[in-house]
Parts: sequence; structure tokens; C-alpha cells
Amino acid sequence: MSGDNQIRIGLLSCTNKVRKLSRAINLSPNATISAIATTSSIEEAKSFAKSNNFPPNTKIHSSYESLLEDPDVDAVYFPIPTRLHVEWATLAAIKGKHILLDKPVALNVAEFDQIVEACEVNGVQFMDGTQWMHNPRTVKIKEFVNDLESFGQIKSVYSCFSFAASDDFLKHDIRVKPGLDGLGALGDAGWYTIQAILLVNNFKLPKTVTALSCSVLNDAGIVLSCGALFDWEDGVNATIYCSFLANLTMEITAIGTKGSLRVHDFVIPYMETEAVFTTSGGGCVSEHKVMTVLPQETCMVMEFARLVGEIKNRGAKPGWFWMRFSRNTQLLVDAVKESIDNNLEPVYLSGR
Amino acid sequence: MSGDNQIRIGLLSCTNKVRKLSRAINLSPNATISAIATTSSIEEAKSFAKSNNFPPNTKIHSSYESLLEDPDVDAVYFPIPTRLHVEWATLAAIKGKHILLDKPVALNVAEFDQIVEACEVNGVQFMDGTQWMHNPRTVKIKEFVNDLESFGQIKSVYSCFSFAASDDFLKHDIRVKPGLDGLGALGDAGWYTIQAILLVNNFKLPKTVTALSCSVLNDAGIVLSCGALFDWEDGVNATIYCSFLANLTMEITAIGTKGSLRVHDFVIPYMETEAVFTTSGGGCVSEHKVMTVLPQETCMVMEFARLVGEIKNRGAKPGWFWMRFSRNTQLLVDAVKESIDNNLEPVYLSGR
Repeated sequence: MSGDNQIRIGLLSCTNKVRKLSRAINLSPNATISAIATTSSIEEAKSFAKSNNFPPNTKIHSSYESLLEDPDVDAVYFPIPTRLHVEWATLAAIKGKHILLDKPVALNVAEFDQIVEACEVNGVQFMDGTQWMHNPRTVKIKEFVNDLESFGQIKSVYSCFSFAASDDFLKHDIRVKPGLDGLGALGDAGWYTIQAILLVNNFKLPKTVTALSCSVLNDAGIVLSCGALFDWEDGVNATIYCSFLANLTMEITAIGTKGSLRVHDFVIPYMETEAVFTTSGGGCVSEHKVMTVLPQETCMVMEFARLVGEIKNRGAKPGWFWMRFSRNTQLLVDAVKESIDNNLEPVYLSGR
Repeated sequence: MSGDNQIRIGLLSCTNKVRKLSRAINLSPNATISAIATTSSIEEAKSFAKSNNFPPNTKIHSSYESLLEDPDVDAVYFPIPTRLHVEWATLAAIKGKHILLDKPVALNVAEFDQIVEACEVNGVQFMDGTQWMHNPRTVKIKEFVNDLESFGQIKSVYSCFSFAASDDFLKHDIRVKPGLDGLGALGDAGWYTIQAILLVNNFKLPKTVTALSCSVLNDAGIVLSCGALFDWEDGVNATIYCSFLANLTMEITAIGTKGSLRVHDFVIPYMETEAVFTTSGGGCVSEHKVMTVLPQETCMVMEFARLVGEIKNRGAKPGWFWMRFSRNTQLLVDAVKESIDNNLEPVYLSGR
């Protein structure tokens, strides 16, 4: 693919997240880095660009606004605190920039709907930056749980994502600060578990959401650890557990009428080049290896750039699948938070 | 070990469960079958004894009462419906017979306490017949979750046991009949999951038990599928899921502050000669294989016969560990049922 067809991505800030994503963009045949914006030192940004192998002609902007005005930027990646999402993502949409936004996409679904509206009005592509959804393994998992012969109908799913945050993280990280990422472990680790249970339920929203009576909050009221139950019809259910306070664990256990699925590293596979899941049913246990030629974050960038390319080069409309998925995930995050705040009362999702 | 030191076990009825246990007894160096009681045909019982390699001198009784009077019987195995447990187990204790009783041990803990009292008054050993607790793997699992260096402190545990019962089972099995095994999937599959979460919590009872809003009951009000949450202090929690309506799945996922544990076949290991569990922590994932020279049901019989032998041959007191564990498991089964019956209100265990 010639450079002319590559989607030109602008990056905000010189952080580790940007470092990781820049590698993914460099590995993507259909995307390139065209600009980076820094609010601190221009020299530091130049050095950051060089040490991370940005293209030599990458522009350095001294403000986010300036990057959003740059005609050589098609799309923007936003590794900024959740509280700032609505302001910057709507501005980017108004400027006609396609948007790759970290999770949680907003502090609540009402805020996210402002972003949705701005994207729709301005015809820009939206995707949230959760990478595991783009791993080729996830496609295979989706196929398995939708196979009525092998898996049957879903009955129950459990997902957890926990990691033991350092004392420093628990004191200073933006994810434990009400003024920055106010949803804590629920908006961070919990986001993935909610995606997992939606994936296994073919993206269908549950009828009710009930927080479990095991939440741990910090002094500022931020969730450090919590669980929740999700109910569909006929006893179909899901439970999640997410935590900053427990050993790294990334599980999906899904049980259908005919088959079961187990994944032990669904968020970040143990290996970058292959990913494994296990199925059982009909008396057999099978381990499935899925080769991943490119890392999952590159798969994400390629899918994002593909959708942007369809709009830019072929006049297509934005694809709304990823935006709907982000919205439904945010809706369930909000519902768990509402149930926690409301003495564990069930939240009914009908009409939301 | 000479035959004189073997504990002589009497069996009630000619069922598949008895067939399986008789193999376990035959493999146990410290136990032997001395009698079987049938309430149907004596000829059938003789044939059953022969085809299952019972010792040639096994006595055939035409009533349960007669077997309980037999001086050549030290201990009795009761594969009878739960509703009959309290009557027959207390009678056996009064007759001085040690007791191996299937799970659930009673319809509720008040009934079980009658059995406990009869055992204490008569100095007889009690054990419930859940075999996985006696697998050498379970000992290793217990060691791992109690290791503060490798596992740290428990934070969360999930356990499920489900199997897809046939239409015939769902219509006719004693486990779906209120007059027989009234606790349904909760007393059957759920029993194991509750044992698993107790094991991982070093047998400490939770503070509260709350049924989850996903129960499925049959027309007679018997639980076919349900889930529950168990809370200890400081956000430590467990969730279980048990079902007659979903594919065979037997999971433990336990998460500590430093390590995690996964078991995929905790009730009945995939292989009889070895059993596997996986741990992770400190950046490593390890698979642990535990060789099982004798099947887990034989390990159970040997432990039971060892305890009975201590009483019979050395004048020891009965060991109460297994009885306490059965009682605590029953207490939690009852609490889940109470929460289901009481509109999912939490049940507080303090003082029970």
C-alpha cells in the first residue's frame, strides 16, 4: 500500500500509552503517524518522536488545538483522563478528525452521547481503544459461542480482570482520582469484563444489572474493587469481578447448553504471537491456538484505519458497530455504579 | 494390612452409586465390604455382589434394619434420598455404626444437627461422601491458597459446577423431586461449589450469603439452576453458579493478592491417575500435575476407614473435622435457599 493511502494519525502527549500505540501504528500498513502534540517541551517531543521511530516528517504541535487544526491529520488518538474526553473528542469531531479514544469512553453515557452526536453530525469514525476485541482469537471465540452445535445457548458467563496496583498507583494514578478517571477499577478493568460478557451474549444488553455487596472504595469514593450480576431472560446470567487489589487475572468462563469456553489471558495474551482458548463439550476438551501475525494493538489500528479509509477514500459512511459497543459497555458501567451508589438495588435497563 | 484390621463396611441398596463405591472399597487396603442390604430381591443382591467382586462371605440382608444390627458391620454407606438421611443416619449412630453419607447431608442444618448429636452421643465417625476433597490434588490446592508468599491473601473466588441433565433426569430423578432430594441443583452441584469456596477461604464461614437473581426453579419449586454471592470482611467475596441446565463445567478460579489458582475439573478430574491445576503470580504461569495412585473415591474410603480404625482399634475419639465441614456446607446451602425464598435478601450468618 502506498503512503498516500495511509491514514494519518495524530497523537496527544508523550506518554507510555502513546509509545505503545506508536509501535502499533508503525506496524500497520494502512496507518502512519503524522503529528504529535505536547503541552510541555518541544525538544522532549522531538526526542520522543525520534526514539520511537516516528516518520521523520512528523509534525510537532505545541497545543492540542493546533494538532486538531492540522490538515495532515486524519484521525487522533486520545490518551487523556476520562474527564477530558467529552471536551476534546467533540472538538476533534467538529474539526473532522476521526477518533480513537481510550476506555472508559466517558464519565457516563450522557457525556458519551455528546461525543456520539458530534461524530454523527460530522461523519467521523469512532472507536474505543480496547485492543483485545481486535485479537484474531476474539473472532474465534465469538464464532464458538455463536455456534449452536458446539456451544448451544449461553447460560452463564463469568469474567474477571484484576491486577495488584502498587501503593504509588493507589495514591497517585489518575484512575483513583475523582477529578480525572472517576470510575476507578470499574471503568478500567471492569470495562473489559463487561465487553467480555457482552461478546459472549452476542452483544445483547441484559435486562437488569445489580452490583454485588463486595465493593471496596477509597476515601474519595472511587471503586478499587467490585463485582456485579447481569441478568437476561430465563436465568441467563453473567457475573464480573474487577479489582486493583488482587493478583493479575484475566478470565472468561462461559457456559452454554452444549459447550463451555475458558480464556485465561483475554485482555493481554501471555504471548504476542499466538493466543489460546479452551473449549469443552461432548466429552472432549480442546485447546485452540490462534496465531497472531501482528500484535492485537496493530490489529486494532488496522481496523480503525480501514474504516477511516472507507470514509476518506471511498465516500463511505462511518461504521457504527464500535460506537454502539462502546455505548453499551458504558451503559453497563454506569448501571453497576448506579447500583453501588443506590444500596445495591437492581438497575433495569429497559429503554436506556 | 491383615483383613482383621480392615474396617467392615455395609452397603444399602444395589445402585450404581453403590457399584462405584464398592470398587473404591475393594481398592482400599484398610476397608472391606462385609454386608449389603436390599429391600427388593435377595437373588438380585447376590448377583450384584458377585458381579462387583464383593468378598465371597459378604452377608445379604433383606432390610436396612437387619444390616444395622449386624455385628460384622463397622460402618455404613447410605446412598439414599436426602429426605431419609436423618432417620437412617441417627438409627445407624444409635446402633454404633460409623457413617458415610451422601451429600447433601440433610434437607437443612436443623435435621443435620440431629445426626450430629446422634454421632456425638454414640461416639461414631461421620463423613460425607464428596470425593474430590480427598484427591491428593485438593491437598496441594489447599497448600497453595494458604501460602502467603505465593498466593497472598484471598480476595475473590468463583466456582461453578453444571451439567446438562437429560429430559428424563429433569422429569424423574430424585434430585428434582420435593419429596426426595428437595434441594435440587443447589444441594447437588452447588454442594461442591460451596465446599470449593470454603476450602479456598481456609474453611472460614462468610458473614453474609445472598442468592443472585438468576435462579431457575421447576414447577414444584425445586432449584434447577442458581447462583449466590458470599461476603467476608474487606470485600473478600465468592460467587458460585450451579446448574442442571448447562454443559458440564467444574471450575475454581481463586484470586489472592499475590497469586491466582485455576482448576477446570475439580469435582471429577479428567483423568483418574493424575490431576492438574494451574497457578499464576509474579509473572509466571505454572501447571501442576498431581499423581493419584488410587482414585479419589478410594482416597475417601481410606481416610474414612483410617478414622474409624483409630476409634475401633486404638480407642480414639471420632474426628470432627469432616462433620464440621459438612455442617458448614449445609449451613451455606440453607442460606442460599433462604435468600432465594426470601426475595434475594442477604442472610447474615453470625451466630448460626
